[in-house]
Amino acid sequence: MVTLGTSSTLCSFIGVMLPQQINFGYRGKQEVKHARCGGFQIKANVKTPNKDDNSLRVTTSSTLDDFVFRQNFTIKSYEVGANEKASIETLMNYFQDSAINHFKTFGIHRGGFGSTEEMIKRNLIWVFTRMRIETYRYPVCDEVVQVEAWMSVAGKNAVRWNWLLRDSKTYQVLSKASSGCVMMNKLTRKLSKIPEEARREFESYFVNSSLMIPEDGIKNIPKLNVTTADYICTGLKPRWNDLDINLHVSNVKYIGWVLESVPESILTNHELCGMSLEYKRECGRDSKLHSLTAICGANNNNVEFYHLLQLEDRGVEILRGRTKWRPKL
Amino acid sequence: MVTLGTSSTLCSFIGVMLPQQINFGYRGKQEVKHARCGGFQIKANVKTPNKDDNSLRVTTSSTLDDFVFRQNFTIKSYEVGANEKASIETLMNYFQDSAINHFKTFGIHRGGFGSTEEMIKRNLIWVFTRMRIETYRYPVCDEVVQVEAWMSVAGKNAVRWNWLLRDSKTYQVLSKASSGCVMMNKLTRKLSKIPEEARREFESYFVNSSLMIPEDGIKNIPKLNVTTADYICTGLKPRWNDLDINLHVSNVKYIGWVLESVPESILTNHELCGMSLEYKRECGRDSKLHSLTAICGANNNNVEFYHLLQLEDRGVEILRGRTKWRPKL
Repeated sequence: MVTLGTSSTLCSFIGVMLPQQINFGYRGKQEVKHARCGGFQIKANVKTPNKDDNSLRVTTSSTLDDFVFRQNFTIKSYEVGANEKASIETLMNYFQDSAINHFKTFGIHRGGFGSTEEMIKRNLIWVFTRMRIETYRYPVCDEVVQVEAWMSVAGKNAVRWNWLLRDSKTYQVLSKASSGCVMMNKLTRKLSKIPEEARREFESYFVNSSLMIPEDGIKNIPKLNVTTADYICTGLKPRWNDLDINLHVSNVKYIGWVLESVPESILTNHELCGMSLEYKRECGRDSKLHSLTAICGANNNNVEFYHLLQLEDRGVEILRGRTKWRPKL
Repeated sequence: MVTLGTSSTLCSFIGVMLPQQINFGYRGKQEVKHARCGGFQIKANVKTPNKDDNSLRVTTSSTLDDFVFRQNFTIKSYEVGANEKASIETLMNYFQDSAINHFKTFGIHRGGFGSTEEMIKRNLIWVFTRMRIETYRYPVCDEVVQVEAWMSVAGKNAVRWNWLLRDSKTYQVLSKASSGCVMMNKLTRKLSKIPEEARREFESYFVNSSLMIPEDGIKNIPKLNVTTADYICTGLKPRWNDLDINLHVSNVKYIGWVLESVPESILTNHELCGMSLEYKRECGRDSKLHSLTAICGANNNNVEFYHLLQLEDRGVEILRGRTKWRPKL
């Protein structure tokens, strides 16, 4: 009899670090090729009744609408949680799917999750290094939502995907998000510079918008440990179907592990309204993880937490994060 | 510091048993009210190039098409696994979603997963007691598939949902499935008879088809234990977002746990082509489970397994199952 549960073999994946922490031989901002387009246009007929829309920084270029991709999703019965609303993972899935479909409209998509011809030649894939999401209202089952997605430059060796999630009837913004993406060699699992040949394939589609969401404090998330954490959940393991086509755990699945160490009373009585994640390292089939959470602050019944996912073996850091919660209505 | 990982509190949910194991005071087949319709009609323009279609038993009634619900799904990037094909959970999600949407077309849906007015009055919800699925080809990302769903009688206190998954272009059958559903009181978590008032709400929509998939051996799946199992995976726990709106773990999530004790070499080199599941008991947020698998047989590189999911505490049975696997092409 083989007892799979006691296996502790760990895939020795190479770490995925933030772009600014890697020596890519970055030659300065002046050499970064910006997009041919100069801003981001909100459509004239778009209503913005949500006060949170005020935080959008938009320019008034009239030529950019072609670079903003729109995709409708109907919330399915299996995409809502116990509260009958779409889960945060569902929104993240929609964002990822719209980014891939946007990439396909460029005519340069050759397979996988946004791989181009020049990327495939070099065994390169996209990986997320960070994600920031704010949510004002979670849509409910059968509701139709529209995702707007666009791509912008983020230094020489990273790109940024940006998203707005809207009520498809009122165009009210329900959520907004942005991410950082870099390239990784799928054979060596090491990060890679973006080759010039690959960059030339998509740089003309960049929208040179300001950041949609200020990355408030994402660089200042402390690394928790067993002493500083208030809650720890152990024994977390990827399931077979947590793996995506890049043969590692989908970045969306990390959120489920983060939530495992959030106190049950918060999960039950509060709603996640903001999340910042820094992906530090990819995670494979045989990984075993600990999820750590510490109370960061509380104000008017709102609560904030710091988070850490780390490998059980040697405490290697997988993800660092921060979440904000508001009381349920 | 609270260590959530060591919690072993178990929700004392009442078991979900097979309908025939429950004394509902069943009054015999002659008293079961059959549908007003007499069979299941395959549309004239439906091509059936798959030899497996021969196993469909259909009658030639010309009046039934209205009772077969059709829904198209496009396979999303987040619904495929490492092999770039839709996962078995994805197909199960589609089946469940189409069943709920079918129910909505009756005009009697009042909320939840197929709850009617008479059900809500009595705090009743639907729960699956069994599922049988055969899959001939798994669709790939961006492929559009069509699910045909219909409901049939399964004794006095159960109904059966039946499904065909088709390639939307060729109408080739990719998968077929059937399930058993009974009612449960969501407050007491005890199974319930189907009240006459509730039954009258939907019985006219039954399609009196023969079974789509012979339930070969589903009653003869042995109960495994640590001695008879060949593979055991311990330490399995529901994640927060595994819960559905009925406040228990979605039946689809059980499949992930079953797969956890299937040998890695099978998951990598074979494809799941048949699955029979008997749901014995619902599973709550605090459950901790063991997944047991035993080799049932092998033939021409095809492999069959028996499965058991049980609670870590007291070994209470959650699910019994059988899977069939064929080599990947």
